[in-house]
Amino acid sequence: MKTTNKQILIDQLPSGALRTEHFRIVESAMPEIRDGEVLLRILYIAVDAAMRAWMLGPSYREALKAGEVMAAAALAEVVETRHATFDAGDLVYTDAAGCQEFVALSGEKVRRIERTEPLTHLLSVYGTAGLTAYFGLLDIGQPRAGESVVVSAAAGAVGSLVGQIAKIKGCHVVGIAGGKAKCDLLVNTFGFDAALDYKAGNLYAQLMAATGGGTDVYFDNVGGAVFESALFTMKPHGRLIACGAVSAYDTDPAKGLQSVRGIPAWFISRRLSLRGFIVADFYARRPEALRELRSWVERGQLQVREDIIDGLAELPRALVGLLAGENIGKRMVKVA
Amino acid sequence: MKTTNKQILIDQLPSGALRTEHFRIVESAMPEIRDGEVLLRILYIAVDAAMRAWMLGPSYREALKAGEVMAAAALAEVVETRHATFDAGDLVYTDAAGCQEFVALSGEKVRRIERTEPLTHLLSVYGTAGLTAYFGLLDIGQPRAGESVVVSAAAGAVGSLVGQIAKIKGCHVVGIAGGKAKCDLLVNTFGFDAALDYKAGNLYAQLMAATGGGTDVYFDNVGGAVFESALFTMKPHGRLIACGAVSAYDTDPAKGLQSVRGIPAWFISRRLSLRGFIVADFYARRPEALRELRSWVERGQLQVREDIIDGLAELPRALVGLLAGENIGKRMVKVA
Repeated sequence: MKTTNKQILIDQLPSGALRTEHFRIVESAMPEIRDGEVLLRILYIAVDAAMRAWMLGPSYREALKAGEVMAAAALAEVVETRHATFDAGDLVYTDAAGCQEFVALSGEKVRRIERTEPLTHLLSVYGTAGLTAYFGLLDIGQPRAGESVVVSAAAGAVGSLVGQIAKIKGCHVVGIAGGKAKCDLLVNTFGFDAALDYKAGNLYAQLMAATGGGTDVYFDNVGGAVFESALFTMKPHGRLIACGAVSAYDTDPAKGLQSVRGIPAWFISRRLSLRGFIVADFYARRPEALRELRSWVERGQLQVREDIIDGLAELPRALVGLLAGENIGKRMVKVA
Repeated sequence: MKTTNKQILIDQLPSGALRTEHFRIVESAMPEIRDGEVLLRILYIAVDAAMRAWMLGPSYREALKAGEVMAAAALAEVVETRHATFDAGDLVYTDAAGCQEFVALSGEKVRRIERTEPLTHLLSVYGTAGLTAYFGLLDIGQPRAGESVVVSAAAGAVGSLVGQIAKIKGCHVVGIAGGKAKCDLLVNTFGFDAALDYKAGNLYAQLMAATGGGTDVYFDNVGGAVFESALFTMKPHGRLIACGAVSAYDTDPAKGLQSVRGIPAWFISRRLSLRGFIVADFYARRPEALRELRSWVERGQLQVREDIIDGLAELPRALVGLLAGENIGKRMVKVA
C-alpha cells in the first residue's frame, strides 16, 4: 500500500493570467479516514474553466486560498470505508476531490455512480458537461425546431454537446470557436450548420449572416465581447443562457471580481434571471389583470396617484419634466 | 364644428437632453376620414418616458423623425366613423394617437374600452401602467410572500403600483426614488416597508440594509447605475424584470443608441430573457437527462470528444492550456 499522496497545490493566486508556476506539487502523508468517511483513489480529474474563476473570489463556492490543494471534481474509487453506504471498490463522483491521488471525505460529499464504458464518459457526456448542455439548452433555452441556436466555446466540453443536441431538436445551429481547425471540426464532425471563428473579426455580421437574420437561442460559455456580439443578434423573445464566462476568468482578481461578477457572470453565480418585456405581449390576458386590479382598487388596497396636466400645449413641458423625475404617479395631459 | 387641429410636432430630435424648444405647436386642417377609419377627439394623452426613447432609434416601434407629430398613446372619443364596429361617442384607446386634438385612424389601430370613473384610470391603473405592473411583477417576477421586492422609479406610474401589488402579495417592499418627499410618500401613503433615495449615495449598502440582506425580485424602470446597484444585491435564484431604462433615454442619440440598446434596455426592446444557472440545481432530474443522453450516444446522434491528459503532474499545464482554448471536448487528467 502506498504511504504518500501526491497533491497539486495552488501555491500562489495569480494576479494576471494563470501560469503553471502558480502551482506546486507536493508529497503528503496518505490521509486517514474517520467514522463516516471514505478514502478515495482518484481516477480522473475534470479540468474545468471554472477552476480559474474559483481563484477570483467567492461564487457558488468558496474562494480558493493560496497553499490549498487545488480544488477539482473527479471520478474516484473507494479504497477504504467507514461509511455504511459505501463498499470498497465502489465507483464514485465528487466535486470535493481536489487535485491529488487520494482523498478522505465524508460520505455525504460523495455520490456512487454506475460503471459505464468508457469510464471517462462519466466526466463528459454523462457528467457535468452533458447535464449542463442538456438542462441549459433544453430547459432554459427551450429551443423549437427551425429556430437558430448559437453556442460559444462550441468545440469545448459543453458547447460541442449543446450544438449536437440542438441539431437533434431540429434547430439551425451555429457554433463560435477560435480558429479554422475547430470550426472545420464543428461542421464536419459534429454536424453544425455553420461555425464562426471569433478571431476572424466582425462576429456580429458573421452571426447575422450565419443565422439568416438573427438568433433565437444563445448558449453563452464565454461572456465579454462574444456575448455582446451575440446579444445584439437576438430576435424578439430570444433566450440567452448564461453558462460560463471564461473570457473574464483569467485576469487580475481586482479586475476579475468586477468582470466576473458583471453581466453575465454574476447571473451564473447567483442563478439569476433577467427578462425584458413589453406589456403589449400580454394583451390577450388583459381581462384577468383588470378584474384583479379593479378589486384591489375597490377594496382600497391599491392607491392610484395621477398627475394630470391641463392643455395640449403643456405636453412638451410635461414630458421634459417627467424625464427629470418631477411626477408622482401616472402623468397625462388633458386635451379635451 | 372645429375646422383646425392643434398638433405638437417633434420639430428637432434632441442631441442631448430633451428641451421644450425641441417641440413646435401648429394648427393644421381637421383630418378627414376614409372608409375603414374613425375620427377621434383626443381626451387624455399618456406622458411616458418611453416617448424619449422613441427619439433615439427604432425599438419595438419605429424611430420618430423630426417634423412628425409627436407620437403618444391616448384615450379618445369617436366623433365620426366609417368603420363598422365603431359608433360616434365610443370611448377608445389607441397608441397611434399622437399629440394632437384630433386624429383620423384606421379602426384596426383603435380599441374600444368601457367607461369607468374616473376616466383617467383607463390610462393609469387600468391602462398600460397597471397592466405593466401586474404582468411584470406577477408573471415575470413570481414574487412569493416573505420575499424582498425592490422597485426603482418607485413613485412613478408603474413603480407605485408594483410596490403596492407586492405588498398585497405579502412581500417586503423597498422602493427607490429621488428625494425625501417621494420617499416619504412611498412609506406613508403607499405602504412600502422602506424607501431609499438614490441621490443619497451608496445605494448598494442602503439596499442590503433595507432588504435585510438581499433582493429576491428587482423590478427595474431605470437601468444604469441604479440597475447595477440592485443587481449586486440579488439573492440566489433572484429575478430581475427589465421594464424601463429611463436613465439611458435622455442622452445624445449616438451614446443613447449604445446605452439604450445595452443591458437591460435591449432586453426590453427585444423581450429577451437571460438566465444564469448552475447544473447542480438540476441534479434531482439527472436520471431523465441521462436516459436521453445515453440513447442519443447509442444511436450515434451525439458524438463525444474527450481530451485525456495522463498524469496528475500535468494538471497545471492542462488547466492553463484549457484557458488558452487548446482543448476540444472534455478535458480531464487521468490520475490512476
